[in-house]
Amino acid sequence: MKLIDSTPRKDGYRMPGEYELHEACWMLWPQRPDVWRFGGKPAQYAFAEVAKAISRFEPVIVGVNGDQYENACNMLPDCVRVVEISNNDSWMRDCGPTFVKNDRGDVRGVDWRFNAWGGLEYGAYFPWDKDAQVCRKVCEIAGKDMYKLPDFVLEGGSIHSDGEGTALVTEECLLHPGRNPHLNKAQIEEKLKEYLNVEKVIWLKRGIYLDETNGHVDNICCFARPGEVLLAWTDDESDPQYEISAECLALLESETDAKGRPIKVHKLHVPRPVLITREEEAGVDVKAGSIPRVEGERLAASYVNFYFANGGIVMPLFGDPGDEPALAKMREIFPDREVVGVYAREIILGGGNIHCITQQQPKGL
Amino acid sequence: MKLIDSTPRKDGYRMPGEYELHEACWMLWPQRPDVWRFGGKPAQYAFAEVAKAISRFEPVIVGVNGDQYENACNMLPDCVRVVEISNNDSWMRDCGPTFVKNDRGDVRGVDWRFNAWGGLEYGAYFPWDKDAQVCRKVCEIAGKDMYKLPDFVLEGGSIHSDGEGTALVTEECLLHPGRNPHLNKAQIEEKLKEYLNVEKVIWLKRGIYLDETNGHVDNICCFARPGEVLLAWTDDESDPQYEISAECLALLESETDAKGRPIKVHKLHVPRPVLITREEEAGVDVKAGSIPRVEGERLAASYVNFYFANGGIVMPLFGDPGDEPALAKMREIFPDREVVGVYAREIILGGGNIHCITQQQPKGL
Repeated sequence: MKLIDSTPRKDGYRMPGEYELHEACWMLWPQRPDVWRFGGKPAQYAFAEVAKAISRFEPVIVGVNGDQYENACNMLPDCVRVVEISNNDSWMRDCGPTFVKNDRGDVRGVDWRFNAWGGLEYGAYFPWDKDAQVCRKVCEIAGKDMYKLPDFVLEGGSIHSDGEGTALVTEECLLHPGRNPHLNKAQIEEKLKEYLNVEKVIWLKRGIYLDETNGHVDNICCFARPGEVLLAWTDDESDPQYEISAECLALLESETDAKGRPIKVHKLHVPRPVLITREEEAGVDVKAGSIPRVEGERLAASYVNFYFANGGIVMPLFGDPGDEPALAKMREIFPDREVVGVYAREIILGGGNIHCITQQQPKGL
Repeated sequence: MKLIDSTPRKDGYRMPGEYELHEACWMLWPQRPDVWRFGGKPAQYAFAEVAKAISRFEPVIVGVNGDQYENACNMLPDCVRVVEISNNDSWMRDCGPTFVKNDRGDVRGVDWRFNAWGGLEYGAYFPWDKDAQVCRKVCEIAGKDMYKLPDFVLEGGSIHSDGEGTALVTEECLLHPGRNPHLNKAQIEEKLKEYLNVEKVIWLKRGIYLDETNGHVDNICCFARPGEVLLAWTDDESDPQYEISAECLALLESETDAKGRPIKVHKLHVPRPVLITREEEAGVDVKAGSIPRVEGERLAASYVNFYFANGGIVMPLFGDPGDEPALAKMREIFPDREVVGVYAREIILGGGNIHCITQQQPKGL
């Protein structure tokens, strides 16, 4: 595998929209007991359901630590490929490659620096040495060359691309002191333009209320197609989420994308607050440096955290009255895609959702 | 990946000759300090030389334990793919898949049971749990379905196939009590016929003198092409190797292959005895259950332990006066192939050679 000493923009590679055609979907396998309750077993069932759902639309490859290899093979359907990729936790979106593609259909990976969402001071756990190698390992298995940025911290969940020159991010995350305190907003924007090959970056202010990733954009807002976004929403003005979503809406409605189009916003209502139960708290190892799980605390549940698959959408459900309306809304917005819901409470308990645990590899030619 | 509940013979798959076209060559990365001196560092350089030599002819993929991943990436050339495959030691020939292929060009793996060359009583080390998963991991990365034999112990180095219905093995290895004591010779032969899809098995008596694999055939004799073999040889009647090789020669000259052809034998003289030096002994960790390395002991050095690559041959050299004649002989026998020598003393110090650390994946269609 070749490390490329250039940038995607210079080489004519761009980050496609997630709704463009995929070659495969990459995931990792959950197991760490200070993040996933009951030794990761319920989460493993949930991840397996996600893998199974996505595999109806495109090939799925799951990376797994050596000690869980046999178990993962046994829990996943035959059509899912299981490969060994050591990891500290299972967020392929964030530690995996951001793939870029040129007009000839050649695909390359971008290896951002990963520091577990904030490094020693703000991060979710220590160490993250294995996560930091995940990107390269994926690229080696996929047979793709790679751009490497040893000095720029970013996670895949903190960026969206419309595939036509526009990126979507949040200030809360990208300007957080745990990422790149040595760079100002203009410098960070320049990095995104260079490595995603976009002309315009739309900066939302904040992500979902209490999101542990410092407000990753992928939990609050995503492109539905060029010129259209889905925004996590609530009509409850007493919910702290309201102010955040309203701020996003106002900003998006005042913006245009890289092509000069106004942005159409589809509101996707969040479920009722998902609160950690006593049993859930009791199932998680308590460990210094890891984020504690406390009964009654609210999780950052949002339907926006879904995955586009070829011809499909796999989205989280929460056993909430909002599930059916959310499914209906998605089917309305995406009439050409089969929308599949997966019960994802076990995933949000770990701090993210279906989009956070997946990473698309664009179709090559 | 699918485990196939059938046999290659029933499905029309056969083990190709190694001289048939390859898709890629698989290797593992050496590191265990009770096998490889100085923490594996000299062996890593030697393995890297082998990978580099083979990569001139066909793609090479090296599997590596997680803790050596970064180092292996840095020591291997860019064109070699590095993937994580946990292993107890680095003998891809023996724990990796035996690939079989049908007439349409579909390729599958055969996963023999691996017990570290003899199990708890006779084996080279304990445990071998990671080695036992190598075959499946290779098949998952290669995207190949697999036959699995949980009840039949075999290593890839103990079999050769001419691709036209004939297999070559040794009694010393296949009838050793550390492999399949519950099966007699006829039953073992039946397994080989079923899983390699051959009609005839030629049983040599013994392998190279003091070979630690209980006389793997791949160190003493291999097919050069259908109807022709290379046999490790010595003219020194006082060398214990003489009697062994002479016995093989007599047997081969009295045999025909599956197609009824007599077998032409090319003699390939072994180098002068390769003896462990004091410094070499001192560089290896001493550990109960692992094979000790003792100054003055003879290693099983043989030029037959080479690898066929697409259009090439990569063969071991020992810094011996026999190196040049062996190279010349090989060039004479294989006028259409480029014969490349790699200095391999560090590999034989671990107990095997270039053929033992490689495994060909046949070209698919």
